[in-house]
Amino acid sequence: MIVNFGSVALDTTRTPFRTVKDVLGGSGTFFGLAASFFHETGLIGVVGEDFPEEYTKLLAERLDLTGLAVEKGKTFRFDSSFGYDLGTRTTNKTELNVFGEWEPSVPDEYKDAPYLYLGNIGPEQQLLVLDQMNEPELTVADSIELWIKTRRDLLIDVISRVNGIVLNDDEVRQLCRTSNLITGARTIMDWGADFVIVKKGEHGSILFAPDTIFPTSGYPLEEIVDPTGAGDAFAGGFMGHLARRGKIDDKAMKEAVIYGNVMGSFAVEEFSIYRFIGLTMEDIEGRYRKYKQMVAF
Amino acid sequence: MIVNFGSVALDTTRTPFRTVKDVLGGSGTFFGLAASFFHETGLIGVVGEDFPEEYTKLLAERLDLTGLAVEKGKTFRFDSSFGYDLGTRTTNKTELNVFGEWEPSVPDEYKDAPYLYLGNIGPEQQLLVLDQMNEPELTVADSIELWIKTRRDLLIDVISRVNGIVLNDDEVRQLCRTSNLITGARTIMDWGADFVIVKKGEHGSILFAPDTIFPTSGYPLEEIVDPTGAGDAFAGGFMGHLARRGKIDDKAMKEAVIYGNVMGSFAVEEFSIYRFIGLTMEDIEGRYRKYKQMVAF
Repeated sequence: MIVNFGSVALDTTRTPFRTVKDVLGGSGTFFGLAASFFHETGLIGVVGEDFPEEYTKLLAERLDLTGLAVEKGKTFRFDSSFGYDLGTRTTNKTELNVFGEWEPSVPDEYKDAPYLYLGNIGPEQQLLVLDQMNEPELTVADSIELWIKTRRDLLIDVISRVNGIVLNDDEVRQLCRTSNLITGARTIMDWGADFVIVKKGEHGSILFAPDTIFPTSGYPLEEIVDPTGAGDAFAGGFMGHLARRGKIDDKAMKEAVIYGNVMGSFAVEEFSIYRFIGLTMEDIEGRYRKYKQMVAF
Repeated sequence: MIVNFGSVALDTTRTPFRTVKDVLGGSGTFFGLAASFFHETGLIGVVGEDFPEEYTKLLAERLDLTGLAVEKGKTFRFDSSFGYDLGTRTTNKTELNVFGEWEPSVPDEYKDAPYLYLGNIGPEQQLLVLDQMNEPELTVADSIELWIKTRRDLLIDVISRVNGIVLNDDEVRQLCRTSNLITGARTIMDWGADFVIVKKGEHGSILFAPDTIFPTSGYPLEEIVDPTGAGDAFAGGFMGHLARRGKIDDKAMKEAVIYGNVMGSFAVEEFSIYRFIGLTMEDIEGRYRKYKQMVAF
């Protein structure tokens, strides 16, 4: 099983073309749904009593929800806007609500899972989850600017204890205080990570490991509807493929990065998680093959 | 021969780390030096009487200069600054000087050349050169924001008469009034170009042709000194390889894009054109092979 610790949120997303309110979102949601195509995935997260029944059903269709707590109060809410080019997001409001002070608890049946993903929650909560697990084979963490700015030292602690870290290019530059991504990735590996994946949105991603630099371009899309969740879907495709392969070597890692690009490319084609509804493994493998053929020379 | 129409300039480039004044630059210079590694290249351009003898010698070592005029007045000067991440350029001053009203004349011995590159000069001057040539097999043009803003219709005329166009991603968005690069590339092909190459700086480039989308990532560099000229060096590697191959099919085009990335990556490793001094074809082929190995999966 892949244990997936992340937020389950109600998103309000505003683009110049359309606004959607209180739709299903959150890093745990996007990661989990993407990963679930490849491997059994269990979710650790919390929602409030206002969380719509239909969203719980939707998640339950693809995920083990033993780790999903329901607490008194309101669900985590995230309100953001995109400009005309859908390139940069502006956060309008983040209401942590029930997620704020929540102390995550790992269900006993998750503790021996070989794969652990720590979504972009604060490093205190990431460490709480990590401490309850029995040495997973592969742990990957994500983070965001907020924690780089307010909890940098604790985030570096997290990095020292995980195998891989997944960050945006700007986050690497901020965290490592360098403009150069290679230099930044080396710094992160010096802190103890085995590998670093730098996500660059539409420009693709780069995998850095001690003897590997694997730059990839994004899957070209004619229509992008809502970039929300692309990074988490990327991570879901990445870990999902590694879990499915059951072997973590250079070849599997590279393939996994491409599956990450593919899952990210699906995520942005609809608002919320709706592109994943009705998506099949055949669609995923088809896009993977198309990508592979496209970039060959 | 590749006929290369472009600027020969004295650049002042300011980075947070160093400033260089009146160094050899210009689109014709960068394109020509890059292309010259692959195929005989002739330069059409103009300099003033103040153009340093040593720069003429340096160009003459690699380029046919029959088409380089020396006019009374000052050489084209370009003054620009880069911020800390060397990502975005700010133009401080552009002095066209002798280039301003110059009417380019194509030497007789260039007129039957099969390959023509129209560097980022104004579309009036690009058309003057195009009109003097005897139907080259492959013509590629570049442009810049200035002409998109001030000469859009004439630039579209140029596009309708060339085979390929090379533009930055932002330029495609502006020119085609769309945020989507695929849509933009289609528009440009509707105007009459056979193919479009979108340059994305450190993020690589994408080749668009009617039945081809070929996204590529940039060659990862640990040290970038001066991004000036990277786009022209890209175009030089691209056309140089096609001329060397002597055959313009899908495979050659894709390889040519990678040689473009490679030449662009060399250009930014030093100020001005200095990375090309002492560079060998072996270095170029070595980086091409390394890139190919790096991106394989």
